[in-house]
Amino acid sequence: MRLLLINGPNLNLLGKREPDLYGSSSLEAIEDSLQLKAKEIDVEIDCFQSNFEGALVDRIHQAVDKVDGILINAGALTHTSIAIRDALLAVNIPYVELHLSNPYSRESFRQKSFIADRALGVVSGFGMMSYQLAMDGLLSYLREATK
Amino acid sequence: MRLLLINGPNLNLLGKREPDLYGSSSLEAIEDSLQLKAKEIDVEIDCFQSNFEGALVDRIHQAVDKVDGILINAGALTHTSIAIRDALLAVNIPYVELHLSNPYSRESFRQKSFIADRALGVVSGFGMMSYQLAMDGLLSYLREATK
Amino acid sequence: MRLLLINGPNLNLLGKREPDLYGSSSLEAIEDSLQLKAKEIDVEIDCFQSNFEGALVDRIHQAVDKVDGILINAGALTHTSIAIRDALLAVNIPYVELHLSNPYSRESFRQKSFIADRALGVVSGFGMMSYQLAMDGLLSYLREATK
Amino acid sequence: MRLLLINGPNLNLLGKREPDLYGSSSLEAIEDSLQLKAKEIDVEIDCFQSNFEGALVDRIHQAVDKVDGILINAGALTHTSIAIRDALLAVNIPYVELHLSNPYSRESFRQKSFIADRALGVVSGFGMMSYQLAMDGLLSYLREATK
Amino acid sequence: MRLLLINGPNLNLLGKREPDLYGSSSLEAIEDSLQLKAKEIDVEIDCFQSNFEGALVDRIHQAVDKVDGILINAGALTHTSIAIRDALLAVNIPYVELHLSNPYSRESFRQKSFIADRALGVVSGFGMMSYQLAMDGLLSYLREATK
Amino acid sequence: MRLLLINGPNLNLLGKREPDLYGSSSLEAIEDSLQLKAKEIDVEIDCFQSNFEGALVDRIHQAVDKVDGILINAGALTHTSIAIRDALLAVNIPYVELHLSNPYSRESFRQKSFIADRALGVVSGFGMMSYQLAMDGLLSYLREATK
Amino acid sequence: MRLLLINGPNLNLLGKREPDLYGSSSLEAIEDSLQLKAKEIDVEIDCFQSNFEGALVDRIHQAVDKVDGILINAGALTHTSIAIRDALLAVNIPYVELHLSNPYSRESFRQKSFIADRALGVVSGFGMMSYQLAMDGLLSYLREATK
Amino acid sequence: MRLLLINGPNLNLLGKREPDLYGSSSLEAIEDSLQLKAKEIDVEIDCFQSNFEGALVDRIHQAVDKVDGILINAGALTHTSIAIRDALLAVNIPYVELHLSNPYSRESFRQKSFIADRALGVVSGFGMMSYQLAMDGLLSYLREATK
Amino acid sequence: MRLLLINGPNLNLLGKREPDLYGSSSLEAIEDSLQLKAKEIDVEIDCFQSNFEGALVDRIHQAVDKVDGILINAGALTHTSIAIRDALLAVNIPYVELHLSNPYSRESFRQKSFIADRALGVVSGFGMMSYQLAMDGLLSYLREATK
Amino acid sequence: MRLLLINGPNLNLLGKREPDLYGSSSLEAIEDSLQLKAKEIDVEIDCFQSNFEGALVDRIHQAVDKVDGILINAGALTHTSIAIRDALLAVNIPYVELHLSNPYSRESFRQKSFIADRALGVVSGFGMMSYQLAMDGLLSYLREATK
Amino acid sequence: MRLLLINGPNLNLLGKREPDLYGSSSLEAIEDSLQLKAKEIDVEIDCFQSNFEGALVDRIHQAVDKVDGILINAGALTHTSIAIRDALLAVNIPYVELHLSNPYSRESFRQKSFIADRALGVVSGFGMMSYQLAMDGLLSYLREATK
Amino acid sequence: MRLLLINGPNLNLLGKREPDLYGSSSLEAIEDSLQLKAKEIDVEIDCFQSNFEGALVDRIHQAVDKVDGILINAGALTHTSIAIRDALLAVNIPYVELHLSNPYSRESFRQKSFIADRALGVVSGFGMMSYQLAMDGLLSYLREATK
Repeated sequence: MRLLLINGPNLNLLGKREPDLYGSSSLEAIEDSLQLKAKEIDVEIDCFQSNFEGALVDRIHQAVDKVDGILINAGALTHTSIAIRDALLAVNIPYVELHLSNPYSRESFRQKSFIADRALGVVSGFGMMSYQLAMDGLLSYLREATK
Repeated sequence: MRLLLINGPNLNLLGKREPDLYGSSSLEAIEDSLQLKAKEIDVEIDCFQSNFEGALVDRIHQAVDKVDGILINAGALTHTSIAIRDALLAVNIPYVELHLSNPYSRESFRQKSFIADRALGVVSGFGMMSYQLAMDGLLSYLREATK
Repeated sequence: MRLLLINGPNLNLLGKREPDLYGSSSLEAIEDSLQLKAKEIDVEIDCFQSNFEGALVDRIHQAVDKVDGILINAGALTHTSIAIRDALLAVNIPYVELHLSNPYSRESFRQKSFIADRALGVVSGFGMMSYQLAMDGLLSYLREATK
Repeated sequence: MRLLLINGPNLNLLGKREPDLYGSSSLEAIEDSLQLKAKEIDVEIDCFQSNFEGALVDRIHQAVDKVDGILINAGALTHTSIAIRDALLAVNIPYVELHLSNPYSRESFRQKSFIADRALGVVSGFGMMSYQLAMDGLLSYLREATK
Repeated sequence: MRLLLINGPNLNLLGKREPDLYGSSSLEAIEDSLQLKAKEIDVEIDCFQSNFEGALVDRIHQAVDKVDGILINAGALTHTSIAIRDALLAVNIPYVELHLSNPYSRESFRQKSFIADRALGVVSGFGMMSYQLAMDGLLSYLREATK
Repeated sequence: MRLLLINGPNLNLLGKREPDLYGSSSLEAIEDSLQLKAKEIDVEIDCFQSNFEGALVDRIHQAVDKVDGILINAGALTHTSIAIRDALLAVNIPYVELHLSNPYSRESFRQKSFIADRALGVVSGFGMMSYQLAMDGLLSYLREATK
Repeated sequence: MRLLLINGPNLNLLGKREPDLYGSSSLEAIEDSLQLKAKEIDVEIDCFQSNFEGALVDRIHQAVDKVDGILINAGALTHTSIAIRDALLAVNIPYVELHLSNPYSRESFRQKSFIADRALGVVSGFGMMSYQLAMDGLLSYLREATK
Repeated sequence: MRLLLINGPNLNLLGKREPDLYGSSSLEAIEDSLQLKAKEIDVEIDCFQSNFEGALVDRIHQAVDKVDGILINAGALTHTSIAIRDALLAVNIPYVELHLSNPYSRESFRQKSFIADRALGVVSGFGMMSYQLAMDGLLSYLREATK
Repeated sequence: MRLLLINGPNLNLLGKREPDLYGSSSLEAIEDSLQLKAKEIDVEIDCFQSNFEGALVDRIHQAVDKVDGILINAGALTHTSIAIRDALLAVNIPYVELHLSNPYSRESFRQKSFIADRALGVVSGFGMMSYQLAMDGLLSYLREATK
Repeated sequence: MRLLLINGPNLNLLGKREPDLYGSSSLEAIEDSLQLKAKEIDVEIDCFQSNFEGALVDRIHQAVDKVDGILINAGALTHTSIAIRDALLAVNIPYVELHLSNPYSRESFRQKSFIADRALGVVSGFGMMSYQLAMDGLLSYLREATK
Repeated sequence: MRLLLINGPNLNLLGKREPDLYGSSSLEAIEDSLQLKAKEIDVEIDCFQSNFEGALVDRIHQAVDKVDGILINAGALTHTSIAIRDALLAVNIPYVELHLSNPYSRESFRQKSFIADRALGVVSGFGMMSYQLAMDGLLSYLREATK
Repeated sequence: MRLLLINGPNLNLLGKREPDLYGSSSLEAIEDSLQLKAKEIDVEIDCFQSNFEGALVDRIHQAVDKVDGILINAGALTHTSIAIRDALLAVNIPYVELHLSNPYSRESFRQKSFIADRALGVVSGFGMMSYQLAMDGLLSYLREATK
């Protein structure tokens, strides 16, 4: 089984800035830890981060026929990008939306998500642990679906 | 460590009605499975379900000083009950909001939650697996907090 | 054929208070009269009233496999209870929403109904006669459906 | 006693188009059946249908002093015509609003009615049976009022 | 100088129904009185009333090159008809919007006018006198404009 | 008979600034002309202008028992002052709201009036002539009322 | 004279939780102190608290003919319960709405009250003292009314 | 193949009024030119214009079983008529919505269309050319569909 | 201890106009009675009323360092004046908002208060008694705070 | 004559994904077919697609003085990008907005377009044929304009 | 060159109250410093502050023909006064809106300005420095305009 | 001291297109002039422009620890990009938002800024001079802060 982990704008700063809000682990650490845990259960994870909406769309396109599920933390683009929604629907791969912090406790414009309604599930608020939970949920779904 | 799992209105019907929407496991099965997994890691879980808002409020009150964290699937009351919000804030116990289905793919009135903004985190859309993920997320937080 | 008549909060006061608004018949009189007319055409009607949302949800659950159709005057809960909506949809029994008075001539918050969009039909404004009309409409539908 | 039955735009197509939505009886059949039932209880019913708002307004005006009650299915004009509202209020004859289908299960713009708040009562969703129920409700009211 | 007086739906009932709201003069009396006063100052007034939006549009079209100004009480169509607005703008004749009663003291949907923003002026609330005032205002403007 | 003419903020500039929008007559000229015409029919008019909301409120209070009707062009305060509304309702004197220009053709915030719903009538858009029409309408009403 | 004091959800926690927000007196202490002060002026006060909307509705029903006025702190139900509103209107007993804290300084959803518009008066923000003030205001009204 | 071209209110004035906004061709010229081009490719076009909503509804009804596709420029009724929507859906004939000018560059109330969401396609802003493009698009679709 | 009582626009008319709405006591009587009761408990009250927002702002400024608490019935300015809000916050003196009538039972624009969210507490609906209750509440708070 | 065809995010997937929604032609096929038809009438078309908003803006800038008209299917950016609007207005080249599907039949957020109000015209819903129609409309306009 | 500096309600308190929010310079100090800097470049500045909207309107009127530009910090009246807007537009003098603090970081009602859309420019958030920047911007514009 | 000047989409066209709206200076000229003036007071300014949101986010990230303040004219992205907001908050460098034109005099969607509420200050409407004023304001703040 193969997954794609996508991180959107500003998530490259993880662990470097605003640790109170986002925790102290770097994105690399999160990616490494996730890949390690995945490997133990024979799952491969490709990781991609970009601050460009277009690059995220391109990367999602490339996932066609190569990936069984997508984990996506689109960052600020969650709330503004219909292009990413369209890309996710076009490739027709099950995906899970995840967030480090809880968008409901933040500015009101973070409560609109353009990808949530078509997501398999949503996980938010658990910091770095959100990645782990989202992967567990996605894998559980994929295993059920391929039974 | 001790947790409280609260299920709101209509969740007693789990597994009996609308399996397409909510899956085929009964609430008892979900509770048992959760308690089993918890026991392995030395965590106790009290389970409570009611169709009465008042009973849910009462049960939350009783958790004071006895429970380290709450898992709550308030069902329809998620969207209409300020009393449950007030109860959760009053007892001041960290809680995770969870849903079997993804509220964003359903009626628009399910997109308002009176408890999400003060929740530690939110998990939705993974069916029965949502309970497992919510517990994992809550425990991960509690362990971090008590370190 | 067997029906369930559900009356929500404050309808136990019928005939006792505000006769100008709700008429002078007591709820018992309405129930008796309806049961009488039903009996003539070999229809049984169970009647239930409660001021507790949870009790109404419980009663709807018990109707599974025992009742062919539901007549429901949810009173004020019509406008605030998603739990009752969920219960009605879960048991999947055809139901008719009814009101003694016409909600459109009253406060604007009475114009939102959480159960109307999934109801078989809606009858309002005819006072005590609303119950009779709702039963006639429900039976007409059930007979058609079971032909 | 004398009633007026008014049907608005597109209801002349009843039974000819979209039977799934509106049933298979023609408007004539509905009118005949209603008149027959009415005759048995010594009630006369005038029937009128038009696709022109102006013609409906004219017809309502002519009802002054000749009609005891009005049954009106204004079709699409229910949601857009203040002129029909004004005509109904001007002639000051009790009226019942009725619909074949349940407007709440359809497009959101069908949930605004310009005549409901001043109607004696509203009946919707019972197909052809809605006409019968509306007549029963109107007659019950008129008999009570003239006692 | 030549004017056109247009009255919309239900205004044919003036003086016959709801005298408390609209006064006791018939539309004919209002038209006659206005024509009389106009004749004294060498002004001709054509009068037209219809309950059909289409007929009002047609009549406005016919005014091209024959009429110097329009007095319009569009009744309920004031609030719902863009077709009348378009007709008035197309013929490009100065017009005054008038109402017998004050729309601001009535239902909120009467506070939207599709013709007010392009009207020369608006007069409302003076009952039958509104017609007189609207004519005076229109003539005053036309005289000024043709100086 | 005695009237009070009240002009609100910036109307002291009439004729001096923005003649395209408001005409070229000064406020004094308008007041004089109105008083002249009034005198011919034995009506007295007191005139008052202020840029202070408080002064307008005070002046309205002083009108109690001395004035039969009020003509008010509250200018910008039409859209923002509830205090003037309260003053007009407190003294309980019939009043007419008037405007030189047509508020519907201007900024959207000019379409809210805090005094229109309780006014006897409203006149707008006829420039200086609005004053004359408003006075005619008010006097016509007062004569009718005192018959 | 006899009063009924009703406290809604979570108010049983008074003095035990969140003293910064709600003060350090227990509900029992508040009830006792109020009853004591009432007794001095020959007023009896029945006290009732419940976390169940249905129980509050039932209790209000029982007050018919036994109670001269109601003091109600409906807690979170103030903002969500139409059933309590209906119960208060049905029994037709003058009531005062009261709150310990000032709802205007809290979440925006606390600014909607379903009972305020029909209340005799509203008192909020004075902590435990709100009960005293509400009682004083209610008694002052009742004495005036029975003079 | 046979098409129906429907033009709504005020379009009879085309070429006669407001050439800047709508161009200088008369409606007859547009209809003739369209019929000519259609004849070359063996397509017949019936043309109908009315200022009456009811007449447009009637004409759409008559198209049943006689027409393969409808071109409709409903003019102002685009934004206000649900009856035309219902007629189009009832006859179940593919239709294209067209406009001479671009509704997005005009008043905001022209941005609501009651027929667009069920149209095969929409063409606007190309003046007289909009008719040609709409016909080309409709024919292209019909040919594809009947292949 | 020293208090300042501020009354806004139109409150100088108290007892003179609209006694049904505001009671029959004059403002002077209310002020005298309040000062008398205050004197008994060694509290001084300065009283100020103006119909000018600017004068109210000035008076609030002068209270700095001279007054321990403010009672304010800002009348209509409650709903429109941010300047008074700013003045109250600038002088940083605890204040109580009070109203004679209950704003919730009146026009919807009276339900917005620019000062309520920063007030110590709010009292409304008790007529003249509102002043007494507001003073009691304010003094109770001040005594607690200075303990 | 020279045109520029711009396609926004995800349109590179045309023909590869979701053929039901977008048809089975690839973007290359559409571009080739359009260029072929254009060449026959001596029109050149440059084609550009990107998933990056910035690249689309850059490409529009380069069109200055080189292109007579723009055909733009901005995809999801239609609804979210003000930068593209600004670019189109800055280069001041007439443009036509086009869509394969009909945005009115899809999610509500697709009904907001940031470029429609300044477009020469809009074509939507005809699948691949939309490109042809948009080109025809644009050329027709350009020929008229350069006559 | 001659400028007018206008300060609205509560700005007389500058430096005396809430230094954290508004800085520690008094209004006099700000005015003096501004006049000093202006004098160096041969610019005269008249300064005016009032807590009365009417006085601000009067002062703006007096500026006609005497002043080349206006600097205005209308304080709370920025958000509520249409009268000041009208005065500024009537005198037709270029003006700059300025604020000490940044209104966007404060209450939402401070984000509406009735004067911003017609201002030459807006400066906010720089404390006392906002005055200097606004003057620099205004002078730069005036010099350009008079070149 | 070191500043970063960031210009967003379409600002590379400055001086080349729409001089009436944006002035006739090129972006290079503005940058040069600003750098020159800065050099005189020993301030260095890095300049960056891009039409890509992602590039702007990247550039902001690089400013960490190298820049004391940011001047940002985000152009159209001001109104649509939460990613830029997040980048600015993440690097935690004081920034000033600036605009050449006054967004309040333009389309309503330009009145929402995603960066204004956390900006040190905002300057708009002074054309090229806005850059100078923004720099002066930023430097004045930085000097104060580092005192």
